[in-house]
Formats: sequence, structure tokens, C-alpha cells
Amino acid sequence: MNFTDNQLRLYLVTDRSFLHGRDLTDVVMQAVKGGVTMVQLREKDICTSDFVDLAQSLKTALYGTSVPLIINDRIDVALAVDADGVHIGQSDMPYSIARQLMGPDKIIGLSVENFDDIEAANLLDVDYIGVSPVFATPTKTDTATPFGLNGLTRAVDMSTHPTVAIGGINGSNAREVIETGTRGIAIVSAIMGANDPTDAAQNLLKTMNQ
Amino acid sequence: MNFTDNQLRLYLVTDRSFLHGRDLTDVVMQAVKGGVTMVQLREKDICTSDFVDLAQSLKTALYGTSVPLIINDRIDVALAVDADGVHIGQSDMPYSIARQLMGPDKIIGLSVENFDDIEAANLLDVDYIGVSPVFATPTKTDTATPFGLNGLTRAVDMSTHPTVAIGGINGSNAREVIETGTRGIAIVSAIMGANDPTDAAQNLLKTMNQ
Repeated sequence: MNFTDNQLRLYLVTDRSFLHGRDLTDVVMQAVKGGVTMVQLREKDICTSDFVDLAQSLKTALYGTSVPLIINDRIDVALAVDADGVHIGQSDMPYSIARQLMGPDKIIGLSVENFDDIEAANLLDVDYIGVSPVFATPTKTDTATPFGLNGLTRAVDMSTHPTVAIGGINGSNAREVIETGTRGIAIVSAIMGANDPTDAAQNLLKTMNQ
Repeated sequence: MNFTDNQLRLYLVTDRSFLHGRDLTDVVMQAVKGGVTMVQLREKDICTSDFVDLAQSLKTALYGTSVPLIINDRIDVALAVDADGVHIGQSDMPYSIARQLMGPDKIIGLSVENFDDIEAANLLDVDYIGVSPVFATPTKTDTATPFGLNGLTRAVDMSTHPTVAIGGINGSNAREVIETGTRGIAIVSAIMGANDPTDAAQNLLKTMNQ
């Protein structure tokens, strides 16, 4: 799959704790119907075979769309299902090894938690950076000090790579987040936890495009 | 590294909960000095970068010995450090994918928890199976019903692959375990928790060879 910056626009990051009995792939595909442009499968407490099964299910469902499937952290899972890429954090696989294992054509995104991380990322040929967190968020508890809107603006200016903003973004702030110049926003609860994920994605895009 | 069944003889599986402040690689290399023939790095609650660092440290320390380094579950970590192989359980990466990712020359071991698992493993070209658990053990809490010595004897007879027995094995029972015909025994606490891992490994081998 060819990667373009436009695919970062509305980036869905999964979280099964918001499913309340619904099927993960169903919820993701409802969100894709609403305009989600990229999907990251993030799992922390799951055995490898279940992780591979979920990834394969998403891969099959997304086949034929222009929505890339990105796997959080686990390069073995990404390779197992031939996903479009991986997203790595500062405590995950070092970037150079990740690139070597994934090959030159796959998408690799890297989380940055401060301005030093951004300077370091500028020296790497990552495909995008995830600026994390923009706001304080209940969905990740191990995160660094929030960038805030001013910090995000500075991050966008500083980065030589396209940026995705993540952390606490929803309909009430998506407009001001996109106005910082970030290429995209990443959403967890505002889509995964919505009763109607299609509607939620459509409304977010509408807000961003106003 | 060429793999031979003899390398299964005294198989050390790491567990950092027994270190009590000691360095993992130091303890492993003391055990290797005592005659350990194979090392499996097993980590469950650790970030990927720390897992890679530990694996790289062991890989460097074991360089030049005939002791293979096996990574538990995480094929990405094994690939990152070019380990000699992986050990997978029934909930880890499916064997066929693991073989595809690791390539034909790497060692792949598979845990079996019952006789059905052994019959299924007989159809695969795994390099060895780990019969788990032989006895009840405090070091793994998610294990199936113990095989016992009679069950292990039957497992060894049934398997077309060399077997390693694991679970609750120590100096007091190593002799009767090896008498079942199993190619090797896997040890966690009886070496990792020993004040003198060199001594512990030597004594286990002595007991097995009596």
C-alpha cells in the first residue's frame, strides 16, 4: 500500500476496553465507513496467538480499502499478517532494528513525548511521528506531560516528519488541534467508545474541515 | 549454530524473580560454566526495548560457546538479536508462521500440555517439544495438569521429536525424570534461585549421570 500523509488525517487507535461486548473488527469497520483514514491495532495484555487473530481479522476486513493497518509495538505480529506497518514507542523496538525487520516499504510511526524525542526522530527516516499526549487522557496511564496546543504547534514546526496528534482529542477540541498544522489526529475513546462509530468519525471529520 | 539433541540435556529457563538484585546475564553465565547446555530467555512483563537489551546481552555473553540462545514467545526479539531460536507455547505464534518468520535453520521448540498437543506436534517439523508441566510448579501459574513421571514416559514414547521435561524439576527428582527417556530437563528455580548457579548446574548434571 502506498502511504501518503493524507492517510494520517483521522487515525483510529483501538482499545478493547471500550467495546462492551461488541466485536473489535465490526467497530473498526463502522468507523472506517465514517471516514477513518488509518487504523492502529493496540493490544497490551493479550497472548500472541489472539493478537495475531485480531490483526488477521482487521487485515481481511480492510482489504481493498485505502486504510492502512498499523500494529502497535509488536513487529512479530505485523510480520505474521503482513500488516502495512508498525507504530513504536520510545520503549519499544529501537527504530533501526524495526526498519531492518519491517523492510524499507512498510510504514513506521514513532511516538515522541518531548522535544528531545522530536529532534532525535528528525534524524530517522520514520514515516510519521505521533505527538503524545496532547492533552491528559484516561486511556493511557503511562504517558508523559501533555504538550498542550502551544506545545503541539511547536512540535509540528520542529518536526521534519508529518505529525499525528494523540491524547484526549475529541469533537470538542479536534478543530483547534488540527489548526496547529498537525497532519492528523489520532482518536481512541471518542470513536471506540461511541455508540455509533460511523457517526462519530463523520462528525470528527466535519469538525476538522469546518 | 548446529543444533543437536545433546544441547537439550540441561536447559535453563530464565526468571528474573529469582535474581534478588543479581545481574541476569551473570547468573546465566555462572550456570553455563556449570554445564547448562541451552538457555531460554523468558520474560512476560517487560517492554520490548528492555527485552531486546537482555537478549543482546545474553547473545554477546554466549558468543563462542556451544550453548544456543532461545527466546520465549517473542519472534520479533529473536529476530532483532539473531537468536538461535524461539520457544513457543500453545497460545503463542502459530508454528507455521513462526517457522516462516524464523527461517528453516533456526531452532523452534513447542510446549505441549497434553497428549493431543503431542500428536499435533508430531505433524510439525519442530526441533523439540517441551513437556509441561511434569510436576506442579510455583514458577508458572497458568499451567495445565501435571504429566507426572508416568505421563512423561508416555509422552516421550509418543513424541517423534526430542523432548525436554519442564516443571518442578530439581536435584531431588532429576534422576527419575531423566530415566523416563526424556532427552533433557528444563530448570528454572533450581538454578536461577541457587546461591551458586555453577554448583547447582554441576550437581544436577552429576545427579542425571549417576
